Amino acid sequence: MNRQTVASNTPGPPLPAMFARYKDLVEQGLAAALPGAPDGGLDGGLNVLLQYHLGWADRDGNPAATPASQGKALRPTLCMFACEALDGDLSQAMGAAAAIELIHNFSLIHDDIQDQDLERRHQPTVWALWGLPRALVAGDAMQSLGDLTMLNSAGRGVSPETAVRVSRILTESYLEMIDGQCLDLGFESRTGITTEDYLGMIAGKTGALIRSSLEIGAALAGGDRAVTQAFANFGSYLGRAFQIRDDYLGVWGDSGATGKSTDSDIRRKKKSFPAVFALEQATGPARDDLLRIYAQEELTDADVGRALEIMAEVGAPQYAERLTRESAEQATQALAAVELPDWARAEVGELVDFLAHREF
Amino acid sequence: MNRQTVASNTPGPPLPAMFARYKDLVEQGLAAALPGAPDGGLDGGLNVLLQYHLGWADRDGNPAATPASQGKALRPTLCMFACEALDGDLSQAMGAAAAIELIHNFSLIHDDIQDQDLERRHQPTVWALWGLPRALVAGDAMQSLGDLTMLNSAGRGVSPETAVRVSRILTESYLEMIDGQCLDLGFESRTGITTEDYLGMIAGKTGALIRSSLEIGAALAGGDRAVTQAFANFGSYLGRAFQIRDDYLGVWGDSGATGKSTDSDIRRKKKSFPAVFALEQATGPARDDLLRIYAQEELTDADVGRALEIMAEVGAPQYAERLTRESAEQATQALAAVELPDWARAEVGELVDFLAHREF
Repeated sequence: MNRQTVASNTPGPPLPAMFARYKDLVEQGLAAALPGAPDGGLDGGLNVLLQYHLGWADRDGNPAATPASQGKALRPTLCMFACEALDGDLSQAMGAAAAIELIHNFSLIHDDIQDQDLERRHQPTVWALWGLPRALVAGDAMQSLGDLTMLNSAGRGVSPETAVRVSRILTESYLEMIDGQCLDLGFESRTGITTEDYLGMIAGKTGALIRSSLEIGAALAGGDRAVTQAFANFGSYLGRAFQIRDDYLGVWGDSGATGKSTDSDIRRKKKSFPAVFALEQATGPARDDLLRIYAQEELTDADVGRALEIMAEVGAPQYAERLTRESAEQATQALAAVELPDWARAEVGELVDFLAHREF
Repeated sequence: MNRQTVASNTPGPPLPAMFARYKDLVEQGLAAALPGAPDGGLDGGLNVLLQYHLGWADRDGNPAATPASQGKALRPTLCMFACEALDGDLSQAMGAAAAIELIHNFSLIHDDIQDQDLERRHQPTVWALWGLPRALVAGDAMQSLGDLTMLNSAGRGVSPETAVRVSRILTESYLEMIDGQCLDLGFESRTGITTEDYLGMIAGKTGALIRSSLEIGAALAGGDRAVTQAFANFGSYLGRAFQIRDDYLGVWGDSGATGKSTDSDIRRKKKSFPAVFALEQATGPARDDLLRIYAQEELTDADVGRALEIMAEVGAPQYAERLTRESAEQATQALAAVELPDWARAEVGELVDFLAHREF
């Protein structure tokens, strides 16, 4: 099984309509959150780095020709959707949505440093262009701007009680995200990771912020405890489905569609789901081969081919798809008891289907 | 002029009594803010790094023999003092004080990465022990814990309005701090920095968090706008005096007393006040020598000696002391119009005197 056949066998679902519907509001929220001019607001020259990372400016601070390089804006879209599905005021969720996207992007800037990734979305990463010290500070600034943007929701129709509540939900969730990143770092030097360890790690690294995006949107719409908890659970399962699919695409996806580095996750020896599952399931010579491959400094094409072979033998792609499908079903189930208008219920279905089966 | 003679000519003032008075409350606040057990709360193994950095645990997570290695806890002490001076409830300021100390320490963990410093307070730095990726994440976690601790003040006697207000003051100030750090990074490769550039940079890098510590303490005591602004201004001048004194000690101080690396700031080519002033003031061959020295990769003992000589010729130590004295006077003046009990007025004097003339 190679990436071409998988990609063409399953021509994934399109981006659900909600992404286009909230795009302008999300961008307005972000524009309000970031200081406007390339060096307005912050004196130290950080704005260019922040705007560059978000895809709004080129490395010299000039407005980007194609600002669409910002990615899907999944998390702010989820926040807006939860708010609208519960008949909340979308203008009250714009700040929160922007805050969440800033927090997500702070983690990406720091992730790229940690992983020494030179490219993201087909562009050089911030640290690759400006060096580690400035990229570190740019990530810190992005985090602070995220916090500030969430706090600034207060007074814009959001009560101080709710502002404290959603700020807390956001901060607690990204502390979980950071903790998950640290667990992930620990995986690099380990081979005895179980599927359960892996699921615990991604619940933090990926699940926490996706969960809080939905929980915050629901809280801003005035949802009661049961309803916000249902949206939180929806987000946890959605986050799991999203990450396992991400890991699948990192090995068997089409790099042109995903925008990830052309080096597959295998070549980078990432302990993503296919590797964890294969290391857990393989026995005998296959296991010995995998252990040898993942202990090497650099992998040859033959190593990558052998790892792919073993992953196929133990059924890693099928198991990844099964886990994704189960998580998607649990996500849908989590919202079953919540009263939602028909359009929102239909969009929950579209969203779950997209995240579980997407090709990008 | 060498560090020995300066140190013995001015045997600085002792640590003011307020540091000892608030020490227990500050530590209680911090203990409540951090997850207790070495790996309680956070699963990813980050707690040991956080507790180690704060001086509470050794590198294996065992309680430290001498937890006094935490430093002076200047900022939380200032926060508690402002609160008590305005007859506020100290128990309401404990969370804020802890939050501020966590934010300060997040910046130290990341600073050590940026500067590639191997030691802090006579101990290996976090990145030196655990590597860059984990240290980066540990700093991020410390920042989030700081934010969360501030938000958690709400409900502990602090109203949601005030919790949002002080969270905002804190976040805005540490965004300024980060911006100042970025300006400082830019100084490394520049030689044409004026004293004014330098004062602008330290207003962010150091002044912002010292200012907000006092402003937050005053706000928690219910101080009105004029009073909190007076404490904020007090903090800005105090921060300036503190940093210029810090830079003075970094060149002419006794490393045994300061706990800084035995390599002087000159050897590390830091663009701290003495270097900025000398580069600005020196002319002719002295300026040529300085430019040559600061353009080198590594400095010899002769280079360090020559730089010290030029700094003495242009009167850098005297000018640093003059600027410190002036800032100290402006700090005292900033609080002149605020009604304070006699004990607090006396302690303002002690504090200003200590920060401007300290040897450690």
